[in-house]
Amino acid sequence: MFKKILIANRGEIALRIIRTCKEMGIKTVAVYSKADEESLHVRFADEAVCIGPAPSHESYLKIPNIIAAAEITNADGIHPGYGFLSENAKFSKICAEHDIKFIGASGEQIEKMGDKATAKETMKKAGVPTVPGSDGLLKDVDHARKEAKKMGYPVMIKATAGGGGKGMRAIWSEDEMEKNFESAVKEATAAFGNGGMYMEKLIEEPRHIEIQVVGDQYGKACHLSERDCSVQRRHQKLTEETPSPFMTDKLRDDMGKAAVKAAEYIKYEGAGTVEFLVDKHRNFYFMEMNTRIQVEHPITEQVVDYDLIREQILVAGGVPISGKNYYPKLHSIECRINAEDPYNEFRPSPGKITTLHTPGGHGVRLDTHVYSGYMIPPNYDSMIAKLITTAQTREEAINKMRRALDEFVIEGVKTTIPFHRQLMDHPDYLAGNYTTKFMEGFKMDPKYQD
Amino acid sequence: MFKKILIANRGEIALRIIRTCKEMGIKTVAVYSKADEESLHVRFADEAVCIGPAPSHESYLKIPNIIAAAEITNADGIHPGYGFLSENAKFSKICAEHDIKFIGASGEQIEKMGDKATAKETMKKAGVPTVPGSDGLLKDVDHARKEAKKMGYPVMIKATAGGGGKGMRAIWSEDEMEKNFESAVKEATAAFGNGGMYMEKLIEEPRHIEIQVVGDQYGKACHLSERDCSVQRRHQKLTEETPSPFMTDKLRDDMGKAAVKAAEYIKYEGAGTVEFLVDKHRNFYFMEMNTRIQVEHPITEQVVDYDLIREQILVAGGVPISGKNYYPKLHSIECRINAEDPYNEFRPSPGKITTLHTPGGHGVRLDTHVYSGYMIPPNYDSMIAKLITTAQTREEAINKMRRALDEFVIEGVKTTIPFHRQLMDHPDYLAGNYTTKFMEGFKMDPKYQD
Repeated sequence: MFKKILIANRGEIALRIIRTCKEMGIKTVAVYSKADEESLHVRFADEAVCIGPAPSHESYLKIPNIIAAAEITNADGIHPGYGFLSENAKFSKICAEHDIKFIGASGEQIEKMGDKATAKETMKKAGVPTVPGSDGLLKDVDHARKEAKKMGYPVMIKATAGGGGKGMRAIWSEDEMEKNFESAVKEATAAFGNGGMYMEKLIEEPRHIEIQVVGDQYGKACHLSERDCSVQRRHQKLTEETPSPFMTDKLRDDMGKAAVKAAEYIKYEGAGTVEFLVDKHRNFYFMEMNTRIQVEHPITEQVVDYDLIREQILVAGGVPISGKNYYPKLHSIECRINAEDPYNEFRPSPGKITTLHTPGGHGVRLDTHVYSGYMIPPNYDSMIAKLITTAQTREEAINKMRRALDEFVIEGVKTTIPFHRQLMDHPDYLAGNYTTKFMEGFKMDPKYQD
Repeated sequence: MFKKILIANRGEIALRIIRTCKEMGIKTVAVYSKADEESLHVRFADEAVCIGPAPSHESYLKIPNIIAAAEITNADGIHPGYGFLSENAKFSKICAEHDIKFIGASGEQIEKMGDKATAKETMKKAGVPTVPGSDGLLKDVDHARKEAKKMGYPVMIKATAGGGGKGMRAIWSEDEMEKNFESAVKEATAAFGNGGMYMEKLIEEPRHIEIQVVGDQYGKACHLSERDCSVQRRHQKLTEETPSPFMTDKLRDDMGKAAVKAAEYIKYEGAGTVEFLVDKHRNFYFMEMNTRIQVEHPITEQVVDYDLIREQILVAGGVPISGKNYYPKLHSIECRINAEDPYNEFRPSPGKITTLHTPGGHGVRLDTHVYSGYMIPPNYDSMIAKLITTAQTREEAINKMRRALDEFVIEGVKTTIPFHRQLMDHPDYLAGNYTTKFMEGFKMDPKYQD
């Protein structure tokens, strides 16, 4: 097992990893940029090494500095957290070359899953459902009709040179094809000087539901059920929950099996997440695989009594998994508390936290690296806390979240607490009736301001 | 169900109760003394009423003021918490007379269990094992021999007028009886002018293990397994855990059945705790019943996924229990963080908290009413926080407690954090090998001071 792990990250996830290392009796090394000198991950690690100035590419992304810090301190493992170098195949390989165990996927596994097109091809081969699409460009409207028939309506046609919705059409039946195809080609040609079109199955009322998996060094993988992350703003998750209110036992089994198949096909090692889009008919399609720990991993831990960071460390140390799958026994919700102003387009709000009072008690977990007097640097991601509530039922978990949000006092900066308070009162959210389109047209109500 | 509950208490338990009421959609009324104006229970309740000056007998114990506060605010229930009026039969009856539901036992139930001698008699009738003792005084040494034979050695003889260990002898076999009996009578006569002696079975290596029960209004009770509270200093619990490291499945079943029998015999309504002494042979004896919520209730909640305050409110509202018993699925430990100096005979250390940083993350629960800048008044009990860790195994829960204690920063006052840090390293504690005598001769090691 590891003697000393360097954490190549900052913020709450660095602290999260240090906590588990301490509990396992493993020494820790923090690395930090000059902007993070006063951070808790620096204070709570056994050793800390400054690796450069505030900009990430000069510190948290600077591989030579991190490897040097690991060598100076004699660390035998590096945990990359999420973001930064966590899905960098080159970094994983360089760690291996330096005889430092990268606690995560191998360079080859990251490469297989890092490029979306390659990942989709690999998953097709593994027999995991992917979003049906035309092979290459559509020759003409007849070709388009044929492809649409194969995958079934509705479909999307998209400009290969596209962006911003230009040259994109949703088509619901064959008799809409001709008119739409022609106008899309025209629009794409005008906008991009390129009328090339391809086709994908249109996912109706899409939900983002992901399956947590863990694989060991011996080719075995298991799943830990799903997380519903459909509440997103510009592809940024705002809140997550497990179980998904849209889930059925059969769908969970089918998706779980597909995710384990995906992981075992590439002999995936470590904790990973297989993200799917699920349509209103409960068809599911592989979207991508995140070859690292996710921000939202705590809700899974809460409902299956499992420490995912511990498991990452164990499998990296060569411990085999039992192979059994894990199913939610409780309901858990995470709200990401960001230093952003929800009343002003979620604009980042860095600065000094002048007052902090954190919620606690039954069923409340808080993962945060901030404290009263902490200066939130403008250089990094704006997430400052993850508030997690867990209860027997979804309704109770929501009620618990409401009261925990009411107790949470952060002064000096704007935060997304008012957004989450409004969300916990939203009839569609309460009904579990939300898709990835939920935030389109969402308007903040001033009454949640304090 | 209740519309508005008045909480006749202060500190962490008042906040604890407010939290569950909020989660249940029930309005709350805080009462407070002048010393508690800045308390969180005042801030987080929907309404707050000042009921008098700092001394408890002029505020938190003053029944007319509390009843008046409930009537002014139209509260239909009163939750007494623990301590103060929680086991006051008269208060329970007065609430009933004013048509305010006392969320706890009835006056009659409290009376039955409030007096130790009456409680013991009641439990004997119910068939619950009690500590064997002589019926009344011992006439002479022959009588003492006969009684000892009946209950089996070892026994204790105790002066009826005794105190401070005077006129008290442990006797391990019949041939030690005569000499000891005579010297004890002599000592008692000299000390108290009264040589009257009685006898009790000596409990070898006693452990304090209690069973949590819940009874409804229809005569049905269930148990939620045990808590081991043997680590005590002068009868004050310092830390508690569940399951007890001394427990076996058979003993849990036997003690659980006895506790349910006790509760059902008196048609107990609400959450209660049946405290037992358990000897080294795993014989158990009824000690007393606490007819209220206990300080240490969270560890039970953590291992059985149950909100005990919610359950108290439900059964007080007439909801029947299912009748099934609950068994620990995890391991949970509570450390009571008191504003006391463990390096100075645990002397209270009231004053202002100048810096506060609280631990968090996976498996950590914190119940506290304090914040940075909070002034701990000298008038009340010195407990300022309950730190609870929960994990799959006892070893993991201890490791988690160690790291949580290390993260906990409280400046401005002395606390028992160093004591708990030393306890979590103590070989006997680690081995689960402790009795109620554990703290005798315990010495603080300076190395845990910071």
